[in-house]
Amino acid sequence: MVENATVARQLAHRTIRAFKNQPVAPEMISELIAVAQHTATSNFQQAFSVISVTDLAKKQQIAAISKQPYVADNGHLFVFIADQHRNQQIGAEMGTTANHLGGADRFLQAWSDASLAVQNTVVAAESLGLGAVILGSILNDAQQLIDILELPQLTFPVLGLAIGWPDQAPQLKPRLPERFVHFENTYQLPMPVKPQLADYDARVHEYYDLRDANRRVDTFTNQVQQRLSLQPEKRAELLQVLQRQGFLLE
Amino acid sequence: MVENATVARQLAHRTIRAFKNQPVAPEMISELIAVAQHTATSNFQQAFSVISVTDLAKKQQIAAISKQPYVADNGHLFVFIADQHRNQQIGAEMGTTANHLGGADRFLQAWSDASLAVQNTVVAAESLGLGAVILGSILNDAQQLIDILELPQLTFPVLGLAIGWPDQAPQLKPRLPERFVHFENTYQLPMPVKPQLADYDARVHEYYDLRDANRRVDTFTNQVQQRLSLQPEKRAELLQVLQRQGFLLE
Repeated sequence: MVENATVARQLAHRTIRAFKNQPVAPEMISELIAVAQHTATSNFQQAFSVISVTDLAKKQQIAAISKQPYVADNGHLFVFIADQHRNQQIGAEMGTTANHLGGADRFLQAWSDASLAVQNTVVAAESLGLGAVILGSILNDAQQLIDILELPQLTFPVLGLAIGWPDQAPQLKPRLPERFVHFENTYQLPMPVKPQLADYDARVHEYYDLRDANRRVDTFTNQVQQRLSLQPEKRAELLQVLQRQGFLLE
Repeated sequence: MVENATVARQLAHRTIRAFKNQPVAPEMISELIAVAQHTATSNFQQAFSVISVTDLAKKQQIAAISKQPYVADNGHLFVFIADQHRNQQIGAEMGTTANHLGGADRFLQAWSDASLAVQNTVVAAESLGLGAVILGSILNDAQQLIDILELPQLTFPVLGLAIGWPDQAPQLKPRLPERFVHFENTYQLPMPVKPQLADYDARVHEYYDLRDANRRVDTFTNQVQQRLSLQPEKRAELLQVLQRQGFLLE
């Protein structure tokens, strides 16, 4: 196995949710933004933006949306935005108003641009000794977040990302066996799935047991099953909010 | 500026489209998949899969869809899949058929999972000396790609990724000035945009000029404007194909 410091860190990735009371230096934030910007972008449209949420009241509001109190804590909070507004604005200034930015294609390009940039930022942060937590939970109330960040039409929050100096050292979370995730030439899921995941389920159970003996002790398949029919009220409205922002209209 | 080898490489990222006739060792592919799997995943649902396309005929078909002949060349071709099928299958085996996997929320979680994994793989590949090109162009005919890869309901191709030993050394492509991409607390695009991008446009123009004196010599804003109303026929059908695969139905 060829390995280097970068890959070793990636294979040892843990989500860090507790940060020390020590700010991330502004030049480090700028560097992370530069890394985000150097991520590959679809058709060179650079269809994403980043908002640094430094205002404590806003952080608290976003923590409430996320239902994760640590979001308001010591970390530096980024929200990555799928952004076709900037490109629409450039076009409008050049006399072009008709566009397909509201279509699924351009929306998903922007969503990918933003997601790719998030992960590039995570890797850079971790290489600098920082910890990171990606926050899908910011979409627990997408409309409220849009209002807080004053997001115009053709923009949408994709993922939050909090980074900071790690104040915890969690275990490595075990991943699915490769053969359930990586196929050759066609999609070929080994079936039935659940019985073949018995060993993996046991390892996930052990991981949670070590993480917090007092709390959730669960397997992977149980978690998957329990989430299937779970849909918080506001998350069920996501498609409508997307369309209000001008997306997925064609 | 704090810098290390990882960040330095990220800031020097170039898309590599030409690979040497030298295969990527299978253990390196496995390592890259392991990195992809260790990417953060929304609610630990691991809602993505990867297909390695090794069959030459399939590679050629995908190159034709992409309209990028190099896709069929020396690189190792991955297609990253947003995958809620595996979790649906696990649920079904456990007696749960009702689910919200067809909703926008679960679809976008899977799309993010796949995109994050793509970027993590790119960083790992580049750290190993490999070059990479992310291929949004595989969606030029999403339905055909779904047929080629035999993708079941609740799966969808997100991005292709070709990696290999670099056989070119392109220039660094200049990115937008930070103040057009990174905001604080609220979305605040400096307006009007285009006149303030004059210097940046000049640098992009110079980049293309150096890249290929015989071909496209263009600015950033021109590219943005020209793409606004451009929508290849099959890409306009993306939303319908997504819905046929069971996504974005609520």
